[in-house]
Amino acid sequence: MTGNPVRLARQSSTLSQRYSSVRGHSRKLAGPLSDADATAQSMADASPAKWHLAHTTWFFETMVLKPNAPGYRVFDETFNFLFNSYYETIGARHPRPKRGLLTRPSLDAILAFRAHVDVAMEALIADGPDRALADLIELGCHHEQQHQELLLTDILHLFAQSPVRPAYRDPEPVAVADDPGDADYVAFEGGLIEIGHDGAGFAFDCEGPRHKTYVRPFRIADRLVTNREWMAFMTDGGYRDPLLWLADGWGQILEHRWTAPLYWEDRDGAWWSMTLRGMQPVDPSAPVTHVSYFEADAFASWAGKRLPTEAEWELASADVPVDGTFAGGGRLRPRPAGPPTGGPRQMFGDVWEWTRSPFTPYPGFKIAEGAVGEYNGKFMCGQFVLRGGSCATPDDHVRATYRNFFQPDKRWQFSGLRLAEDA
Amino acid sequence: MTGNPVRLARQSSTLSQRYSSVRGHSRKLAGPLSDADATAQSMADASPAKWHLAHTTWFFETMVLKPNAPGYRVFDETFNFLFNSYYETIGARHPRPKRGLLTRPSLDAILAFRAHVDVAMEALIADGPDRALADLIELGCHHEQQHQELLLTDILHLFAQSPVRPAYRDPEPVAVADDPGDADYVAFEGGLIEIGHDGAGFAFDCEGPRHKTYVRPFRIADRLVTNREWMAFMTDGGYRDPLLWLADGWGQILEHRWTAPLYWEDRDGAWWSMTLRGMQPVDPSAPVTHVSYFEADAFASWAGKRLPTEAEWELASADVPVDGTFAGGGRLRPRPAGPPTGGPRQMFGDVWEWTRSPFTPYPGFKIAEGAVGEYNGKFMCGQFVLRGGSCATPDDHVRATYRNFFQPDKRWQFSGLRLAEDA
Amino acid sequence: MTGNPVRLARQSSTLSQRYSSVRGHSRKLAGPLSDADATAQSMADASPAKWHLAHTTWFFETMVLKPNAPGYRVFDETFNFLFNSYYETIGARHPRPKRGLLTRPSLDAILAFRAHVDVAMEALIADGPDRALADLIELGCHHEQQHQELLLTDILHLFAQSPVRPAYRDPEPVAVADDPGDADYVAFEGGLIEIGHDGAGFAFDCEGPRHKTYVRPFRIADRLVTNREWMAFMTDGGYRDPLLWLADGWGQILEHRWTAPLYWEDRDGAWWSMTLRGMQPVDPSAPVTHVSYFEADAFASWAGKRLPTEAEWELASADVPVDGTFAGGGRLRPRPAGPPTGGPRQMFGDVWEWTRSPFTPYPGFKIAEGAVGEYNGKFMCGQFVLRGGSCATPDDHVRATYRNFFQPDKRWQFSGLRLAEDA
Amino acid sequence: MTGNPVRLARQSSTLSQRYSSVRGHSRKLAGPLSDADATAQSMADASPAKWHLAHTTWFFETMVLKPNAPGYRVFDETFNFLFNSYYETIGARHPRPKRGLLTRPSLDAILAFRAHVDVAMEALIADGPDRALADLIELGCHHEQQHQELLLTDILHLFAQSPVRPAYRDPEPVAVADDPGDADYVAFEGGLIEIGHDGAGFAFDCEGPRHKTYVRPFRIADRLVTNREWMAFMTDGGYRDPLLWLADGWGQILEHRWTAPLYWEDRDGAWWSMTLRGMQPVDPSAPVTHVSYFEADAFASWAGKRLPTEAEWELASADVPVDGTFAGGGRLRPRPAGPPTGGPRQMFGDVWEWTRSPFTPYPGFKIAEGAVGEYNGKFMCGQFVLRGGSCATPDDHVRATYRNFFQPDKRWQFSGLRLAEDA
Repeated sequence: MTGNPVRLARQSSTLSQRYSSVRGHSRKLAGPLSDADATAQSMADASPAKWHLAHTTWFFETMVLKPNAPGYRVFDETFNFLFNSYYETIGARHPRPKRGLLTRPSLDAILAFRAHVDVAMEALIADGPDRALADLIELGCHHEQQHQELLLTDILHLFAQSPVRPAYRDPEPVAVADDPGDADYVAFEGGLIEIGHDGAGFAFDCEGPRHKTYVRPFRIADRLVTNREWMAFMTDGGYRDPLLWLADGWGQILEHRWTAPLYWEDRDGAWWSMTLRGMQPVDPSAPVTHVSYFEADAFASWAGKRLPTEAEWELASADVPVDGTFAGGGRLRPRPAGPPTGGPRQMFGDVWEWTRSPFTPYPGFKIAEGAVGEYNGKFMCGQFVLRGGSCATPDDHVRATYRNFFQPDKRWQFSGLRLAEDA
Repeated sequence: MTGNPVRLARQSSTLSQRYSSVRGHSRKLAGPLSDADATAQSMADASPAKWHLAHTTWFFETMVLKPNAPGYRVFDETFNFLFNSYYETIGARHPRPKRGLLTRPSLDAILAFRAHVDVAMEALIADGPDRALADLIELGCHHEQQHQELLLTDILHLFAQSPVRPAYRDPEPVAVADDPGDADYVAFEGGLIEIGHDGAGFAFDCEGPRHKTYVRPFRIADRLVTNREWMAFMTDGGYRDPLLWLADGWGQILEHRWTAPLYWEDRDGAWWSMTLRGMQPVDPSAPVTHVSYFEADAFASWAGKRLPTEAEWELASADVPVDGTFAGGGRLRPRPAGPPTGGPRQMFGDVWEWTRSPFTPYPGFKIAEGAVGEYNGKFMCGQFVLRGGSCATPDDHVRATYRNFFQPDKRWQFSGLRLAEDA
Repeated sequence: MTGNPVRLARQSSTLSQRYSSVRGHSRKLAGPLSDADATAQSMADASPAKWHLAHTTWFFETMVLKPNAPGYRVFDETFNFLFNSYYETIGARHPRPKRGLLTRPSLDAILAFRAHVDVAMEALIADGPDRALADLIELGCHHEQQHQELLLTDILHLFAQSPVRPAYRDPEPVAVADDPGDADYVAFEGGLIEIGHDGAGFAFDCEGPRHKTYVRPFRIADRLVTNREWMAFMTDGGYRDPLLWLADGWGQILEHRWTAPLYWEDRDGAWWSMTLRGMQPVDPSAPVTHVSYFEADAFASWAGKRLPTEAEWELASADVPVDGTFAGGGRLRPRPAGPPTGGPRQMFGDVWEWTRSPFTPYPGFKIAEGAVGEYNGKFMCGQFVLRGGSCATPDDHVRATYRNFFQPDKRWQFSGLRLAEDA
Repeated sequence: MTGNPVRLARQSSTLSQRYSSVRGHSRKLAGPLSDADATAQSMADASPAKWHLAHTTWFFETMVLKPNAPGYRVFDETFNFLFNSYYETIGARHPRPKRGLLTRPSLDAILAFRAHVDVAMEALIADGPDRALADLIELGCHHEQQHQELLLTDILHLFAQSPVRPAYRDPEPVAVADDPGDADYVAFEGGLIEIGHDGAGFAFDCEGPRHKTYVRPFRIADRLVTNREWMAFMTDGGYRDPLLWLADGWGQILEHRWTAPLYWEDRDGAWWSMTLRGMQPVDPSAPVTHVSYFEADAFASWAGKRLPTEAEWELASADVPVDGTFAGGGRLRPRPAGPPTGGPRQMFGDVWEWTRSPFTPYPGFKIAEGAVGEYNGKFMCGQFVLRGGSCATPDDHVRATYRNFFQPDKRWQFSGLRLAEDA
């Protein structure tokens, strides 16, 4: 690749800002955490904050610096074993459920590792990397942003296990909003449409290729389901009626005795919920969050509706600006819907929206060669697609084509729902 | 419903033959089983043969006779509790993993229950049931056929646990076939096609509604993957290379140490397999069977191909007669492919073919009201669609639109695969 | 060994009667069982009746006939693998929790195996075995008697899992007895006494050697604890007060939610219990049974007493005839105490009595060489001694020195208790 | 209680020194630990260092200060819930396996809690507590010493889970000692002896009452079993011969695949072991440690000996000064035996010695009233007694009558063995 020097310099300056901004945000997220907070692991699904901070740095060291920065000195040879995640190609790994036992290296040592890598990365970026390398760095930034969201949801889960219910950020009064009123349903014609990423700008491998799909006419709610609506479902026995539930979902009910969303607690007849700002009363007007796919699906059955497919969701969001309550604003809780607009509201931010689409490869999808190829393809089994981002998602991270995915029993993400129906 | 007496009589005569034929086949399947064979349960996924024989009869008693046959005397009031399966609407159930502890009622008592219900059913059918009732009886017959296949696969699993490896039917030499040679790939144009059942003749609820779907050009193998090909995969380290596997599949490998299909045993360097006719040498020319979705998917990756979607499979089978190695012939093992025909061979019978399609509701699918509504919809999560039937499927049971489904780790069904690729 | 021919002949005649009587009793116990009843295994602690019938026969074939009966033809070579139990020296074994999957060989085949071995055994006994061989045959008879009791307790456990609650023997009214009144406490001086078997007559290895032990003055109840007393414990919150319980016992309460002895069911406010004669009302005057060591110990704490040690029990029983409610009478349930006698009543039969003594080797105990050495020594860890036999123990099986042993959480034996206290 | 003011003052001065010395030692043990080190919990059997530091302080606050120090201000009301351990009488507890999730309060906060309690305790002690209160404070000191040892063994277990194998204290070369040569066996006559604490000076409840017991003549090894001897056992197939093992021990072998003591690693053919001073070569002359009761018992069987009973051990140690390698010296590893003395060596310190005695109540033992009564009695089930203290035991903590106890599968304590045999 020869390249245009001027363009490369401009690119490199943008990339430098991007890299620096993403990395700085991680540091900022670590701010409220003690060494112990950053070390503990509350369940096998979660990772310690220290691990998120180190693993994302390991990505840059292993994927970018080692093959591309001659003379780069590895910070600590043991880190490859400690902070590799699922990349089977790279070698043996520390077992995931034991990540919380890595009290050393300390949080300070991890921050030093980050600083060491940042120096080398900034030098590499200043050198004007070629397009492939710049793309890889960009991938590393998006990868780090994914872990920024997980760091928040994992810390929330950790703090929720503690009887003292620590607040990640200081509690802050939230103005009680008016109820957003009944949802309106926006109609779409469907037809033979195209969805998926078309290749302009960054996207994860699983977002493409862009492809045709046939969608029947449908209607989709113009806002997210609220806590008030969820309480009506609970009051009506929603968690006790097996006919509303998928068989595996009912199995979860019987095993885990779910009676409310994760983190909800009944305190003398009022619902409170653990949040990143400590225990707070449940706001009836705000979108429900921390519900599993099974719960979302059961709620939709109870409401006489269904969840949208990911194609329907993508079609409905096509003309909606990517704007909403993301993590940058620091609210860290979903926000009640604003006034009706005639179109879909709350498509981005607030809560990830469960769709009824299993996470499968798009037609024509190919797994990339090498370690980067392990990115998303290997998870295309047993998970459902969520769309739109949440109040814990970094600000410039999602797109209309963005596909998040989790197993249907998971509840520790900021996951909620929007209803749909056949037209 | 007034109806046409002549037509009803003819219908009723056909239905009577159908009912009698299906019920007789179950009795015949029970023939080689002792009381103990019919009682044992080898794993939570399987049910005792006695349970299959009773549960299918319970369906007719509870769904058909009790609401429709005035004066019908229930055979034994406790059977509703014992032999209800997943019908949460009908009441409490005996816990599934403990079905093998029901040593009473005996196999003889279950056969008496069957005879009692058959007398009442034959009388009801002779009375000329209206269309809705005839449809319900037809559903009961198809339901029983599903359990006939499960009875065989569950007995095979049970007998495979025993060190004495009992044969369900007498071993019988199988002529060693010539290798079918390389598979040919048959090309299809795809486009905006229709799949699903159109309403003529019986189909399960999940097979409809018929609907449009867009399919890109593809090519599909004209025969099933053989044991010889599978051995090449094994020899090439297929079970040891994590890059070929879905993450959850690799987890199965690590946990269960799979190194070959279920029931295969290495005896002094030669592969043998437990079958319904006892331990037999693996026939290299025959289709591989008893592989999980995870294995099928890994094999396809290794071969540089992929599994077909269910839409592709249905398109490819549209003009193929529903004919093949089903259970009726008594072979009870998949048969090597016959000579090339220019089109897809072995589409029906031999082995169920894993598709890459998760089992999801077709657009417009609605769950029926009442207990019958619990049929398929509640399982639309975490399972993959298999197509085409197997050597354990009753002869007149499947269709091109038939959707079978199992979790991706299951191996005790006669499940195999056919490869496909993008055109 | 030369021996005295006359004495050997007499011995051999006695041994022949003994062998024939024990073996016949097993056959009689199998009488009420179907092939399926005899095959099922309700938990890992239990074994199928068929297994008990075969394993005891395997003992005679493997330990007695194969080394001592020239020309003996092994009935079936696979049985060594199937019916060996814990004898690691003899070779690989079928995994214990999967014994219930051995539907073949059938109960009839096992009975044929028994007949085959009996013919050879009777011939061997008629030949006048030497003393060592006679002792081994005697050991085999006592071994079979142990399994006769387990066969009954395992069948009771199996039938209790079934919603239809089958009765092993026909229900039979039990005359309601008067309450036996308060227990009296019989005082013993103790001192430096001797316990253990002195070598005259048969005893298991763990019953010796006879040895000195120092016992402080104590008092022991003259009868077993009754169901009425147990109900008082329950009513007083015995199952809810952690201070009454050993830590591991309280763990069982929390995990298994015990609120009553095993098999008890509250039917409209009255206590019923599953028995070998089907569901029966709990008789308040009869001894409580099916309680664990943890429960027995907690009851004793609640009563302000303690369980006796095994030395105390053996001292107290020294002059009591070995007589009581054993299995031979066919009652198969413990019997209320008769009128006071001034000494300990119910020392033998009715229920095994938990002592507070862990099962440990007596001073000077040595494990025998070879497979017979695996008999009891390897279980001397984590179990408590029970004394006196039960209503399911064969009539001529126990002695004052007999040591039974089970883990402290086990409840499916006929296990009860008698209180004691320091003088 | 009136008391003698002079004597109380002297007592109080001694008690003050004792309290201060014990509390200071805990602080010193915490010195090398980071906040994260002190928070993590490596298994359910272990507790975080922070928990040990807080729980021992909670004992003084709850048992001593709250009932006895008017005006005492509780440091933090939530700590009762967080740092109560097994005292069911005191109220609900944080679940033990989740102690590692308590990242707050921090180590610094726990140290502040300690300082707060120490101020109040010192004032209380200066006031001259009466005898009962002084005894309670003494109990608190001994309780804290028990946790000091656990803190060390739990940290060792935690650090052994980390691939970087952190050293708790700096590695320090250990002079390689000469092999101590064959063990001599010291003979004891036994007879009707007395064991147990006689009431002079502090002892835990379970050490008394002193009582008669009959001991047969025996011989006991004059030193501990060494690593060299253990390697001979390993080389001779000790871990592969089921006949050497208790049945439950063999179960552990099959489940956990033990092939060497805990923490041993084969590095290129040489044995290394994780220690509190990091990975170190195994010293063949030093006593073996980190073996379970099952292993100790199997080794004794292999050696043709047995483990001593606790009565034998106590008799053998009666005239041996309580002196040896305890934690105070800072070696933190067992030391090879010194030259023969004609009597038993290494009876105190180095490693806890497994005895063959289950942990049971001594004759006449009564559980005390109230929370203190929960001390030891509730653990008298399923554990074996260990004697003599270890290299991690505080210097002035054990006595000849001291009874430590653990389940027979536990290996993370400094547990070893000494052989014995019948005379």
